[in-house]
Amino acid sequence: MSGKEKLSLKQALLIGACMFLPVQASAASPSTDTLAAKHASANYKEFVELLAIPNDAVVPADIQKNVAWLEQAFQKRGFQARALENNGKPMLFAELPGADPAKKTILFYAHLDGQSVTPQQWKQKSPWDATLKQKTDKGEWETIPLEKLYGEQVDPDWRLFARSSSDDKGPIMMLLTAFDALKEAGQKPSVNVKIILDSEEEKGSPSLGEVIRQNAELLKNDALLVLDGPMHQTNKPTLVFGNRGVAQATLTVFGAKQGLHSGHFGNYSANPAMRLAQLLASMKDENGRVTIPGYYDSVKIGAAAEKIMAAVPDDEAALRKRLGIAQAEKVGKNYQEALQYPSLNVRGMAAGDVGAKARTIIPESAVAELDLRTVPETPPEQLIGMLKKHIEAQGYHLVQGNPTDEDRAKYDKLASLASEEVSASSSAARTDMQAPVGDWLYRSFKATYGEEPVRIRMMGGTVPTGAAVEALKVPFVIVPLVNADNNQHSYDENLRVGNFVSGVKGLIGLLQQPF
Amino acid sequence: MSGKEKLSLKQALLIGACMFLPVQASAASPSTDTLAAKHASANYKEFVELLAIPNDAVVPADIQKNVAWLEQAFQKRGFQARALENNGKPMLFAELPGADPAKKTILFYAHLDGQSVTPQQWKQKSPWDATLKQKTDKGEWETIPLEKLYGEQVDPDWRLFARSSSDDKGPIMMLLTAFDALKEAGQKPSVNVKIILDSEEEKGSPSLGEVIRQNAELLKNDALLVLDGPMHQTNKPTLVFGNRGVAQATLTVFGAKQGLHSGHFGNYSANPAMRLAQLLASMKDENGRVTIPGYYDSVKIGAAAEKIMAAVPDDEAALRKRLGIAQAEKVGKNYQEALQYPSLNVRGMAAGDVGAKARTIIPESAVAELDLRTVPETPPEQLIGMLKKHIEAQGYHLVQGNPTDEDRAKYDKLASLASEEVSASSSAARTDMQAPVGDWLYRSFKATYGEEPVRIRMMGGTVPTGAAVEALKVPFVIVPLVNADNNQHSYDENLRVGNFVSGVKGLIGLLQQPF
Repeated sequence: MSGKEKLSLKQALLIGACMFLPVQASAASPSTDTLAAKHASANYKEFVELLAIPNDAVVPADIQKNVAWLEQAFQKRGFQARALENNGKPMLFAELPGADPAKKTILFYAHLDGQSVTPQQWKQKSPWDATLKQKTDKGEWETIPLEKLYGEQVDPDWRLFARSSSDDKGPIMMLLTAFDALKEAGQKPSVNVKIILDSEEEKGSPSLGEVIRQNAELLKNDALLVLDGPMHQTNKPTLVFGNRGVAQATLTVFGAKQGLHSGHFGNYSANPAMRLAQLLASMKDENGRVTIPGYYDSVKIGAAAEKIMAAVPDDEAALRKRLGIAQAEKVGKNYQEALQYPSLNVRGMAAGDVGAKARTIIPESAVAELDLRTVPETPPEQLIGMLKKHIEAQGYHLVQGNPTDEDRAKYDKLASLASEEVSASSSAARTDMQAPVGDWLYRSFKATYGEEPVRIRMMGGTVPTGAAVEALKVPFVIVPLVNADNNQHSYDENLRVGNFVSGVKGLIGLLQQPF
Repeated sequence: MSGKEKLSLKQALLIGACMFLPVQASAASPSTDTLAAKHASANYKEFVELLAIPNDAVVPADIQKNVAWLEQAFQKRGFQARALENNGKPMLFAELPGADPAKKTILFYAHLDGQSVTPQQWKQKSPWDATLKQKTDKGEWETIPLEKLYGEQVDPDWRLFARSSSDDKGPIMMLLTAFDALKEAGQKPSVNVKIILDSEEEKGSPSLGEVIRQNAELLKNDALLVLDGPMHQTNKPTLVFGNRGVAQATLTVFGAKQGLHSGHFGNYSANPAMRLAQLLASMKDENGRVTIPGYYDSVKIGAAAEKIMAAVPDDEAALRKRLGIAQAEKVGKNYQEALQYPSLNVRGMAAGDVGAKARTIIPESAVAELDLRTVPETPPEQLIGMLKKHIEAQGYHLVQGNPTDEDRAKYDKLASLASEEVSASSSAARTDMQAPVGDWLYRSFKATYGEEPVRIRMMGGTVPTGAAVEALKVPFVIVPLVNADNNQHSYDENLRVGNFVSGVKGLIGLLQQPF
């Protein structure tokens, strides 16, 4: 809030009230619903302007334009904002001045960059030309005049189609809008606010950790809120307390020195594709559970967490139908619980050729590309270590690179296991759902939305914010605000207009809720 | 032998002798060694001329040129020869006139077409420009003047490099030369002789069976001798009594409808690559033996055959060293015995991507390309039937093409097994080693070469002559005459000059040996 503006009586009153009840909306203040609707409506034009600036991090000039635009947007709302240098692809830092040492400091994270686009795939003029659409009776998206968004009668089910509309400029604009609403309500946020906008999230945030370390004092905070990702499929208010990490390994099984004629040597020279199959088969049972000794041992979930996970309104029958599978694997009792365990996934497999190029050979080697989703209790080194031990226990001699003639003469079973060093941005992280920041979010969302929020103990995927969590060493919660069916990372990305309004509402409520 | 030529006294005497001892070289006749060396030497120029005619069956005009050349070559040796029509790629038929109904009729098979070439790969002017080379002390092949081949001092270890030098114009030229020698010796062959030269062997002999059926009367014979393929590694005289067949099948295991994010769905949606691995692993044990019930049951070898196979001078330790494997699979007691059983080979396998293109997904499907080498006791339909039954016994529902939504809702484990219809040219065939034709060859080779020939009960690979065997329904033996290290099918194909001479010698001996 800029002190230079003239205040209405009502505003002045509200400010007065806030001095005593600074974080709780008084009965006299407009409802969060009213505030959200009004300010969302007022800011759509600005949002469309922001969406018009291309933001693929492969073009530093575009990133700079976004940062310049956002710097101004935060500044005109009373923030101190400045670019944080990052090899020509600056991040943006913003902070509300006048921090109160008695209050907790929250760092909001979002990202201003977007996924690459293939403009021809988009059913509109350009991915940067935000386009308003409504669903026809036939279930198709039909363009309607953008001006309708600026009018009085806005249908919450309309969608605004543009790159980054949901991922992740939408949440940035919701945050800006929430501060406009607070300003009108004459309220100071219940917490000290810092904001960092990443510029390379879609490229895996390669330098986020470094930028944070270089600006450690500036970014100091008590908890990190990540405004990114989709809400639960039901579009209910969602809080996510953690994410799995990911490690990758390449397993190669070696056969003869070169591909052999399958007639002359079939039944004589072992087939590495068959051996790889046997080796992989030794790692999992029929139910999809990893059988490598110790793989799940350190995971302890507990009754309280089990209860919260069981309460997540996943429609698993509908999910299985959508995926096209009759049964789920039996790693957890339900979908949420399955994600609490590390995984062992064959993401790619190859030996010889298939299809028209297949030849009748015994291939010389067979490769499986593995990804291991990790959890905080099972760091990647530990899982890779178990995997390695298991492979050796199956009689394999592991080599680096290719086996030598000496290895070939000595060992019947030869394989290699190469694993990349796992970066901090790929690590698992989880905040206790009962931690103060979790409790604050839970209370706020419950009060604002009038319903129990969906609490995700740990999502299955990996988010590059792991780097931020690692560098900051603070509790964190992911607060997704956009519709799950937003086509993020694909063409025709869109944001449900109703989600923009409810996201603003949730943020207003949060900034009003005492920590 | 043409009756119109003037005969020397010696020849006349020999003819006289032959009237009583028509098939046994008399003490007075020149030795097979002398005859072979002399006539080989006399025919090298003609051989080089034949090698100069390109013979890839993709160019019908080239095939026609070869046929025309060979027609004349046989005719000038007293054969009745003519082209057999075959869609512009004629085969050649030749027959010695004056067949004796009291004698057995042997059909010699060879092929005049050659593998495709990539001329740049060849270390000589052209694959059609026969080039004489000798091995240097460093083990490299060094070109020497072709004229040396026409001189007195010919080193048997020299090699003649050209496409089809070994596969299969060499044996054709050896056969022509053997008849020149018999003519000089004034001998009539011990059998009635027919010859067929295939024009599309390197393309899998797609119409050989049909051409044989269309010319059934013309080609009628008591036994088929296939002059093709390499001799045993030791370069000892070799007789091959059979070959495995080959059938192919494509096994696809289905996962979810589309590739899934391995973070969001790892531990929930079964991975088809892992399931394929488990399915393949269920088909073979640690020793490489197929565990599908009944797979080997009908194979009975017997003590006599076991003894002959054990006598094959395979240097298995050297073979394993060359292949780069420490151990062989344990299907047979030795290499020869391993090839008497049907095989189950994974010739290709794929799911998702590997290497730089690998993505962290659960692939939507996984494919294994299988080839099954068959033996006469296990026809392909029988093996494919067992395979299918085994897959179903592992809980899979087999679909045609892709599963429907209904299949997906109903069955947890979905797969498809597509097998091509097996053509006659891919079928297994074997002649009893004790059959009259086998005995004739064995006696002849033993006498001619003065050593025990290597007898291969059944080679592991598949030969397109299966079509001929199938169409003719006669016993057959493969009589390979060229050095094993001839690079056939590759660049720098070559024929060891010594093998040309000894091949001619073997054929002379054979044509002298009473059936």
